[in-house]
Amino acid sequence: MLTTYKAKATKLPGGMQVETQSRNFKFLIDEPKSLGGTDVAMSPVEALLCALAGCQAIIAAAFAKAQGVSFEDFHVEIEGDINLAGFMGKADVRTGFQEIRYTMHFKTDEPREKMEKFVEFIERTCPIGDSLENKVKLVNAGLVIE
Amino acid sequence: MLTTYKAKATKLPGGMQVETQSRNFKFLIDEPKSLGGTDVAMSPVEALLCALAGCQAIIAAAFAKAQGVSFEDFHVEIEGDINLAGFMGKADVRTGFQEIRYTMHFKTDEPREKMEKFVEFIERTCPIGDSLENKVKLVNAGLVIE
Repeated sequence: MLTTYKAKATKLPGGMQVETQSRNFKFLIDEPKSLGGTDVAMSPVEALLCALAGCQAIIAAAFAKAQGVSFEDFHVEIEGDINLAGFMGKADVRTGFQEIRYTMHFKTDEPREKMEKFVEFIERTCPIGDSLENKVKLVNAGLVIE
Repeated sequence: MLTTYKAKATKLPGGMQVETQSRNFKFLIDEPKSLGGTDVAMSPVEALLCALAGCQAIIAAAFAKAQGVSFEDFHVEIEGDINLAGFMGKADVRTGFQEIRYTMHFKTDEPREKMEKFVEFIERTCPIGDSLENKVKLVNAGLVIE
């Protein structure tokens, strides 16, 4: 059975600031001044990295007990490369991320081998990771002119 | 030349709340109570939808002039389907989004055909859309045990 998640993005007046919302939760996105924005919030590509690393952290928290792993602290450092010439229309290269790398940090007394297996579990369970590694069908469901 | 974007996700004590950060900007993610969270923020999959729709809105704002298009208001409604049985380990289905659909809304006097072309421009220019439609290589860059 499919669960359908919904969200909305609204361009704010002037500039590039965009308010995004899902259910009753919101966050703002913008671009740095170097790309024409006002730099009051992170950019969409940074938000994507946050969604992926955040998803890995939630999986770690949610499944630790079931996977027989315990840890005190956990964080993920993540980075990804984009060739902005693609986005700018200055080169025929992809506009999106070419590679995303992450390092998971656990504070734990568990043996390393056990934590390596837990990292593999997180990787294969993460919905955002699967969405990025295995393609998602994007569908233009309509254009509304008001 | 590649630009490298960075972010970090830190599990907060107790529960599933995660603080995500890129540069000096932060947003919180959580899960609804039905999935074991405390429901104080959107979930990672909702944040991904916000990143995609937000990226489309920023592209629309950034490139309207260069594409010879003007509009007053713009928003995107977006939704995507996930089979949670995959995530829960209860079925051998993908854990991520199976499909994401969006509807763009413009308040404009421009002819419909011109706006349809602008939507196509947004679609092929959007870095988040490209990342989802055309796969990203994800790399486990290391495991740190503290």
